Amino acid sequence: MVLIGSTDLKEGKKRMSQLRFEAISEIKDIHIFGRMGRQRQPLPLLFNGSGIEVVVTGSELWIDLETDSDMHEPWVYYEINGAFMGRQMLLPGEHRLCLFRNMSPDAPKRVRFIRELQAMGDDDRSRILVKGLELDGEFKEAPKYTRRIEFIGDSITSGEGSYGATEDVDWIPMYMSASVNYSTMTAKELNADYHLISQGGWGVYCGWDNDPRHNLPKVYERVCGLSNGPTIEKLGTQEPYDFDSWQPDVIVVNLGTNDITAFSQPPFLNPEDGQLYQQRRNPDGSLNREDELKVEKAIISFLYMLRKHNPRAHIAWCYGMLGCDLNMTITEAMAAYREESGDKNLSFFQLPNTTMETFGSHMHPGKKSHENATTALCNYLRQLMNW
Amino acid sequence: MVLIGSTDLKEGKKRMSQLRFEAISEIKDIHIFGRMGRQRQPLPLLFNGSGIEVVVTGSELWIDLETDSDMHEPWVYYEINGAFMGRQMLLPGEHRLCLFRNMSPDAPKRVRFIRELQAMGDDDRSRILVKGLELDGEFKEAPKYTRRIEFIGDSITSGEGSYGATEDVDWIPMYMSASVNYSTMTAKELNADYHLISQGGWGVYCGWDNDPRHNLPKVYERVCGLSNGPTIEKLGTQEPYDFDSWQPDVIVVNLGTNDITAFSQPPFLNPEDGQLYQQRRNPDGSLNREDELKVEKAIISFLYMLRKHNPRAHIAWCYGMLGCDLNMTITEAMAAYREESGDKNLSFFQLPNTTMETFGSHMHPGKKSHENATTALCNYLRQLMNW
Amino acid sequence: MVLIGSTDLKEGKKRMSQLRFEAISEIKDIHIFGRMGRQRQPLPLLFNGSGIEVVVTGSELWIDLETDSDMHEPWVYYEINGAFMGRQMLLPGEHRLCLFRNMSPDAPKRVRFIRELQAMGDDDRSRILVKGLELDGEFKEAPKYTRRIEFIGDSITSGEGSYGATEDVDWIPMYMSASVNYSTMTAKELNADYHLISQGGWGVYCGWDNDPRHNLPKVYERVCGLSNGPTIEKLGTQEPYDFDSWQPDVIVVNLGTNDITAFSQPPFLNPEDGQLYQQRRNPDGSLNREDELKVEKAIISFLYMLRKHNPRAHIAWCYGMLGCDLNMTITEAMAAYREESGDKNLSFFQLPNTTMETFGSHMHPGKKSHENATTALCNYLRQLMNW
Amino acid sequence: MVLIGSTDLKEGKKRMSQLRFEAISEIKDIHIFGRMGRQRQPLPLLFNGSGIEVVVTGSELWIDLETDSDMHEPWVYYEINGAFMGRQMLLPGEHRLCLFRNMSPDAPKRVRFIRELQAMGDDDRSRILVKGLELDGEFKEAPKYTRRIEFIGDSITSGEGSYGATEDVDWIPMYMSASVNYSTMTAKELNADYHLISQGGWGVYCGWDNDPRHNLPKVYERVCGLSNGPTIEKLGTQEPYDFDSWQPDVIVVNLGTNDITAFSQPPFLNPEDGQLYQQRRNPDGSLNREDELKVEKAIISFLYMLRKHNPRAHIAWCYGMLGCDLNMTITEAMAAYREESGDKNLSFFQLPNTTMETFGSHMHPGKKSHENATTALCNYLRQLMNW
Repeated sequence: MVLIGSTDLKEGKKRMSQLRFEAISEIKDIHIFGRMGRQRQPLPLLFNGSGIEVVVTGSELWIDLETDSDMHEPWVYYEINGAFMGRQMLLPGEHRLCLFRNMSPDAPKRVRFIRELQAMGDDDRSRILVKGLELDGEFKEAPKYTRRIEFIGDSITSGEGSYGATEDVDWIPMYMSASVNYSTMTAKELNADYHLISQGGWGVYCGWDNDPRHNLPKVYERVCGLSNGPTIEKLGTQEPYDFDSWQPDVIVVNLGTNDITAFSQPPFLNPEDGQLYQQRRNPDGSLNREDELKVEKAIISFLYMLRKHNPRAHIAWCYGMLGCDLNMTITEAMAAYREESGDKNLSFFQLPNTTMETFGSHMHPGKKSHENATTALCNYLRQLMNW
Repeated sequence: MVLIGSTDLKEGKKRMSQLRFEAISEIKDIHIFGRMGRQRQPLPLLFNGSGIEVVVTGSELWIDLETDSDMHEPWVYYEINGAFMGRQMLLPGEHRLCLFRNMSPDAPKRVRFIRELQAMGDDDRSRILVKGLELDGEFKEAPKYTRRIEFIGDSITSGEGSYGATEDVDWIPMYMSASVNYSTMTAKELNADYHLISQGGWGVYCGWDNDPRHNLPKVYERVCGLSNGPTIEKLGTQEPYDFDSWQPDVIVVNLGTNDITAFSQPPFLNPEDGQLYQQRRNPDGSLNREDELKVEKAIISFLYMLRKHNPRAHIAWCYGMLGCDLNMTITEAMAAYREESGDKNLSFFQLPNTTMETFGSHMHPGKKSHENATTALCNYLRQLMNW
Repeated sequence: MVLIGSTDLKEGKKRMSQLRFEAISEIKDIHIFGRMGRQRQPLPLLFNGSGIEVVVTGSELWIDLETDSDMHEPWVYYEINGAFMGRQMLLPGEHRLCLFRNMSPDAPKRVRFIRELQAMGDDDRSRILVKGLELDGEFKEAPKYTRRIEFIGDSITSGEGSYGATEDVDWIPMYMSASVNYSTMTAKELNADYHLISQGGWGVYCGWDNDPRHNLPKVYERVCGLSNGPTIEKLGTQEPYDFDSWQPDVIVVNLGTNDITAFSQPPFLNPEDGQLYQQRRNPDGSLNREDELKVEKAIISFLYMLRKHNPRAHIAWCYGMLGCDLNMTITEAMAAYREESGDKNLSFFQLPNTTMETFGSHMHPGKKSHENATTALCNYLRQLMNW
Repeated sequence: MVLIGSTDLKEGKKRMSQLRFEAISEIKDIHIFGRMGRQRQPLPLLFNGSGIEVVVTGSELWIDLETDSDMHEPWVYYEINGAFMGRQMLLPGEHRLCLFRNMSPDAPKRVRFIRELQAMGDDDRSRILVKGLELDGEFKEAPKYTRRIEFIGDSITSGEGSYGATEDVDWIPMYMSASVNYSTMTAKELNADYHLISQGGWGVYCGWDNDPRHNLPKVYERVCGLSNGPTIEKLGTQEPYDFDSWQPDVIVVNLGTNDITAFSQPPFLNPEDGQLYQQRRNPDGSLNREDELKVEKAIISFLYMLRKHNPRAHIAWCYGMLGCDLNMTITEAMAAYREESGDKNLSFFQLPNTTMETFGSHMHPGKKSHENATTALCNYLRQLMNW
């Protein structure tokens, strides 16, 4: 703990704050959102939705960060007592962000500070490290969440297009978020802890462009398998994830949107093996059965993987926010898995589709669509889990 | 055609209407909603959603009816230019109902007169027969519908609970409707003709109470297989239906809600064979696989039956307005049918669930729930059918 | 009391109802909505919103009516336990309407039967007389309303255009209602008894067409001053109203819409005095001050009249559902009355305007607009009256 | 113009941005929101809603600022193409904020950068100065607004409580905004330029606490009469405002909420004259007439002042978002002004009240309430102004 003076309150003013620094790893009353690896000091926020939550007294609170990035600068948002306050870009460097100031010192304030940007595999430097907090009050007991949900998804779960004007099409961090995102909203509404593992453009079998390397199962078992590169891997992203450290009650898998898109795209030349990859359609427009079965096989394998690491979790495949053309394929694979494994602790739930009225930017779900999905999903999970 | 005087306009008044009677079978410019058998004069309205539509000039319009019933009196509603006007009970007897009067004679008015009550199998006398119309204007061209949807369902599609206060639990015709019903709303929104074949409490395999006789496939191939008894059958209800007379573009099958309920009910003693019937659950609450497969087998058979009679129709199984616990079962059966038959012209679509805010009476979907289902289904069908 | 057999339940059926007739004036447990004169048997329903409410046990309930009309046939609606059930036209004659049947005999049902059509001054014969009820159960205690609201208005309060398609323009009873009407909705929401006194096209000073005879103050002091003619007056419509019989807590005056319209209409030749009447505008479009003051004088006089007969009522002038161009005029008059009389128990409240999205037929408020007004007015009255 | 290197794109990367600095006063294609005084370099953003708008090509855009404050740090928000992107606190110092980066260089982006915090009279140092923009593209033609609205108001128009949880009660800049504010929303919806002049707690005659110095008329004629103190006044805040430089089409006056509150507060001891000030109520709760007339006199004077400086503007007194208890008082004063001056170019419009469902923090309008007000006000202004 280091005593420092608040930089923005000058001598002679009504109140002289004595801020003290608390290293993030030393704070006991803290809730951390998102998957963690071994490194806790400074604490990497690896995924969108990763972040911290504290309840503090005192008149002000600061967060000390170190961030880096190349093309894909991270964004963050923060909220006080559950209400959205700020959202901003963080360019490379050291940051001291004031999360609140001049508040009634005695009242406890619940503060969340959350990463907006998904794990960026193609930007080795893109990262947020939380070093600690500065405050002039005390930590109170952090919220305890008895419910846990893991969300696994694609651009929808990465909140792509959740910010931005309808006509905006740039693929940039600014338009992605955890703040306007059905997963965050659902967890808040259900008072649940949650993890997000998602990547725009990826599928359960392949990416939207037929790239067979872009599938979530491939990275699921590592801490943050999505983030690779010499720099980022020093944070332990490619180490095996310790599933025992956090067992979800429900796993929401929102995958399939890119797998179905691949059926309408040109072949992909995989630089790793020099092969062409393409999901094909029959002349009548229906899915080529052989290729459809590749998706199903990937689903079945992924279900086995999820079950292996999460023996008690209910697995709910929740799909449909950008069309539901893969319903028959997903459910056929789920049925095959269920029959083969005898595992009945899974279900299929269709999320409400995005319409012209509910699009955000670049044809992705906007705020209203995320709200609709949240309403439906909360209703479903409350009944399913007896929550 | 018989000239008669309007009974409610007395001599010496500004305008003396000369109403003429037109037998229903003689009217060429008419659209008839709902399945028809051979009898056209008087025209039986056999299902909820069955009815007539005309566009007429003139200052007034009457409809001449003959109705009967024992316990389950039919209800009807009518609308002018697409707007709801009236809804009432029809007790046994002859009726002359005025559908409008004192309107601007030259303006064409589009009028729908529709049965609210589902086909009532347990009330041999329950019926509405349309004898004809009385008017002082001319028939204009009736609407032509280029889109056709067949809805097959249970109490949801029979509009049970779509009227009535939340706490009402009586099972009576008053609370059922075609007017507050996702099927009617969807057809209107899509400007489509539609047929309704539905029965409260029935399933695709068995009824909510495990009664194996209460399944829609059993009655699908007859004109109105739901209506039996010596009196009603004189209308031809048990004759084979002429599927060539009306081929739908889409068949919406909204079944499963009673099939899943049966898994939580006591056994049913079938008086026809003296056997006990019960869909069982495993000790862990999951569905007994043997019994689940009975439902699946029924689904598969029904899909074959639907395809046989409707070779070009897209079959959309649309389920979920009262929970979606049978999703895995329905889709497994659909996958099996698809694999076995090679028929790919079918899909599964989940309808939005009914919540505490959207219930009508006796825990059935209320108006808001039917509206939500309509929005989702229209969005789906527009994309699916390129409508 | 006369024992009669239910006409629609035949011998040999499970249950043989013994219906008994109760004259309306003999029923003690009844609530009557709307102004009443001396005649109680049969009971005339003089205004839209006039009607009866009872709570009964038994399996069925009928209402016996006598109705008449020339051009303007009355419509009625009925509800069970607060939920809308039916709405229909009543042509001249005797009627026995079944309000419910085959319901659980022991459960009490709350039933409202209400007139939809406003008092029709230009149809001497237009009337509904309630003779009595037939039932096989018992009357339970009728609802007691401790709050009372009187609504005084024009076509908006007569529910003109609350039914009908947007493009419909006929001026006929079918399109008017008390069922889709902010006044009924407000009273229901606040659990209040209410009276409606309204007439389409009328104002506080003159009618929309400058007819100086069409003002509500002129008829306010008689039982139903709106209804004149040799036949209808036999019901006592032109007798002085006994204000002591029903003192409202709040008087909602929703007048002004026709008064402002008159400023844009051609002169009216009053056949009674041969004079031309016209409310004028200045060349710049503003209201001619002299004519504006005529409206203000009428408002002031009306306020004195209301206060005279309702010494304790709060008078809330609630205006704006079809534009608020008369705000400055109404409030100037109210200020003058307040200053002159010292009476401070009055207020001005602007109701939400009707927009393209919320119009009903012939450019009048539709259901959504009445709902918006209800929400605003209930919020206002709850705060104002501490309800 | 100075060429500088972007700090966050390193050598060897795909694209090397050459950012150039443009002083704010040198940019011709710019739209400035909010009142301005003489100082244009750096440009002070004096009010909430003050800010700049440009349309630029290029891949990135930065804004260079200098800010200061003591207790009340300014907040800002920014949007791209009309969509909200970021919102943050600005502590004292020099700032380079990146507004976007890595966007398609050729596409023009419309960017608004807006002050959230109202003019803070009690924080002499609180200020935002815009020095210039850095970009690698070109300025395109800035939006031209042919409609102009001036909003004059209190805490509602300062967006107090538009951010924050319902239970939050601290009075701090974080909870105030121009981004969630009916005035900004209305101007956007109507595609209008707008000025905001507002102060929380102030009225047309006195503040909520009876402080007679806290009235908007007192400061209206100076550039930013709200901001006083030796430091801030160097920006010219207390100089006479040049009304000719910007003539509004409509002036929306949303005052009265604090004036009515004062009637329920203890007396205020004015340190300037040592007198006690209190607006009184009569024993029956009604307003003391003498004190009510003080408010009316202030309204009348203010209307004269507004008219003097804005000869052609329509003056719409728009009131009611936190109750409408002053309706009779405001309109009486407006009537007196109208009669006395002959000026008819004014109107009274009641805004929708805030309800339990639409409150933001510390019992002020939340987002939904501001949206409701926007819908009503836009509808009103479109009709009134023929927009």
